[in-house]
Amino acid sequence: MQTINASIITIGDELLIGQVIDTNSAFIAQELNKIGVWVKRRVAVGDVREEIWKALDNEAAVSDIILITGGLGPTKDDITKPLLAEYFSGKLIMHEATLAHVTYLFEHVFKRPMPLLEVNRKQAEVPDVCTVLKNDVGTAPGMLFEKNGRIFISMPGVPNEMKFIMQRHVLPMIKEKFELPYIGYKTLMTVGIGESFLAERLKNFELNLPSLIKLAYLPNHGMVRLRLTAQGEKQQIEKLLEENFNILKQQVEDVMAIDEDITFEILLGRLLKDKHKTVTTAESCTGGYIAHLITSVAGSSEYFKGSVVSYDNSIKENILHVNNETLNAVGAVSEETVQQMITGILNVMKADYAVAVSGIMGPGGGSAEKPVGTVWIAVGNHIKTETKKMNFRFDRKRNIELTGINALYLLCSFIRNDN
Amino acid sequence: MQTINASIITIGDELLIGQVIDTNSAFIAQELNKIGVWVKRRVAVGDVREEIWKALDNEAAVSDIILITGGLGPTKDDITKPLLAEYFSGKLIMHEATLAHVTYLFEHVFKRPMPLLEVNRKQAEVPDVCTVLKNDVGTAPGMLFEKNGRIFISMPGVPNEMKFIMQRHVLPMIKEKFELPYIGYKTLMTVGIGESFLAERLKNFELNLPSLIKLAYLPNHGMVRLRLTAQGEKQQIEKLLEENFNILKQQVEDVMAIDEDITFEILLGRLLKDKHKTVTTAESCTGGYIAHLITSVAGSSEYFKGSVVSYDNSIKENILHVNNETLNAVGAVSEETVQQMITGILNVMKADYAVAVSGIMGPGGGSAEKPVGTVWIAVGNHIKTETKKMNFRFDRKRNIELTGINALYLLCSFIRNDN
Repeated sequence: MQTINASIITIGDELLIGQVIDTNSAFIAQELNKIGVWVKRRVAVGDVREEIWKALDNEAAVSDIILITGGLGPTKDDITKPLLAEYFSGKLIMHEATLAHVTYLFEHVFKRPMPLLEVNRKQAEVPDVCTVLKNDVGTAPGMLFEKNGRIFISMPGVPNEMKFIMQRHVLPMIKEKFELPYIGYKTLMTVGIGESFLAERLKNFELNLPSLIKLAYLPNHGMVRLRLTAQGEKQQIEKLLEENFNILKQQVEDVMAIDEDITFEILLGRLLKDKHKTVTTAESCTGGYIAHLITSVAGSSEYFKGSVVSYDNSIKENILHVNNETLNAVGAVSEETVQQMITGILNVMKADYAVAVSGIMGPGGGSAEKPVGTVWIAVGNHIKTETKKMNFRFDRKRNIELTGINALYLLCSFIRNDN
Repeated sequence: MQTINASIITIGDELLIGQVIDTNSAFIAQELNKIGVWVKRRVAVGDVREEIWKALDNEAAVSDIILITGGLGPTKDDITKPLLAEYFSGKLIMHEATLAHVTYLFEHVFKRPMPLLEVNRKQAEVPDVCTVLKNDVGTAPGMLFEKNGRIFISMPGVPNEMKFIMQRHVLPMIKEKFELPYIGYKTLMTVGIGESFLAERLKNFELNLPSLIKLAYLPNHGMVRLRLTAQGEKQQIEKLLEENFNILKQQVEDVMAIDEDITFEILLGRLLKDKHKTVTTAESCTGGYIAHLITSVAGSSEYFKGSVVSYDNSIKENILHVNNETLNAVGAVSEETVQQMITGILNVMKADYAVAVSGIMGPGGGSAEKPVGTVWIAVGNHIKTETKKMNFRFDRKRNIELTGINALYLLCSFIRNDN
């Protein structure tokens, strides 16, 4: 069994000026990990000839597979492609099949004026020493090179084009070409306990883990995912993982939210489909973010009825029928208000379950009594509601995200426990 | 005037398995660019001693400033900090002021059981050869080292802690320590024209640009931002930029959406505050995403009343009063439906302006007549509405994002032209 290492090189000034957040590398790394390829390094360089050349040399020295994204756009000053031709001792030629594809796209999909511009035609040029990886969803093709036993793959930086080429061409090619180890994962999510306290609790568990298995702490949005990973022979790995995952689950039983690696919005959909029930949201401080999370799941129209974002108090009163007296007496950010929002939204939407939130996300709007980060969350059905007060202490963006994920967690728990 | 180069090193296996998307590097790069520091390379390495050491050596060879994030969490196997101590020929000592701060945080902010765990105490250890950069918002302090004329800064990987240390300590230090060039920017956003066609149109403009000024094409979400950048002596730069920006604006007048570098949700807020008007959204396919964008802006409660997410057709009928006949005759994804949604939501929310969207985001729900990606957008006030049909051809996530940004663009245009 070989250990196969990969490096990811991203090319483009836009990454070095911070214009673009690099989501491609995370996707590539995840996909490679799933098939048993270890990503050793990730490097970002600008549209500078010497920098790209040096990065290719450096990464080829440590990795078997070098994945390159970016540097192929129509206004990229023609640096990357000629450089690749030279690096692999070839020359640029027009690739007729790609040209036909680009022509087709402009004519029938983009519906842009013909004839093609020179820069568009150039997208169909490739070094004569590469294997072209057809890009069905865009104009710049992927290119595969081999040199000194290393494999180099160049892909466009547009995320959906890169993903297409990875899934259609690159991952199948790697699986065929290399004898890869089997990699097994088991993941669970904890809520309400910090990373250091988890680590303290799991000290002995970690010490007693078989050497084949590694435990990773993956904190995100105030929750910590625990992941067991092992690689080796499939049957042995699966059995070992199963046994140790069961022990881990027992150790964190009181703080475990899900025993698999899915988001709460996906879990919510599964719970609701199982019960043939529907859900709605009444949102103040999250401004539609919870509904957005729920509807980011394909097929959510099966169980999601809709939402009212009651940002202004008049909407809380007029549509959700929150009492004016309540708003005056205890304010919009209160347990009473979110409880009444649940009742109101369930009636308006004729749904089975609801979640309601009201809080102060900042930077303004806080007071001594209700500082920025104060949030009331309610979840419920037509029979009962449950409420929780949260105190976040971050910026507006993160406070909204944390409110959203906590609201979905409480909603999932409520639905799971509702028989 | 020196040219100051920086490298960013991110440490952590979570980046190499794709668990985490690296947003820190983009923030750091943006902030450094603003003050005239050029980011030469970004490198991500795992929690592996030799890899970190080599990255420090490599980056110190090419950059004046090396910014390091990550590798400092409580379960990080104690690799990075001891390595930094050794790399800079020091030893780890307890930093009493940091320990007092960590103790305070656990006692008064996190409200966690005392006494501190060993791993929490360890967060207050630092190499005795560093300058401690106090982290007011977390437990792991920043650390500044100098070696052979290079400056190294180590920061925690938690985004808001990194941002705090950058803004409080690192950026002021760099500005004081180095004589930096003045960097000027002028940015505008175009809509409805591809990068290659823009480049074709601006070919002569680019050829005639003074050598001090660079033009960058920054495509994102189907729109292309054009940015002029120049560095040098402030007054000269400002004047040159102003002149050339005016020429650029004339060249793209017909496709320009905004002549500055802001988002449509921020522009929307500014337009509404200027006119003392309010806005609402009626969303089907975007599921609350447009409301989420609007409310991501601090102070949006001043002009945003609320939203109805009418995912289910019953909500379109019952709350927004879309005609049942319309839904039966032409369907929910139609010009008539979004027009009626505008009328309905304006009445329900008692707002001045509204945007309504209905479409098919995929992967399911498409038909030959209305394929996935078909979207109707309407914007309007109590007097008139304008509609637009869009055809996107991406995955669910991107279709939602593109619908959101286009809806906000149309809304801003409508409000700007409404006198």
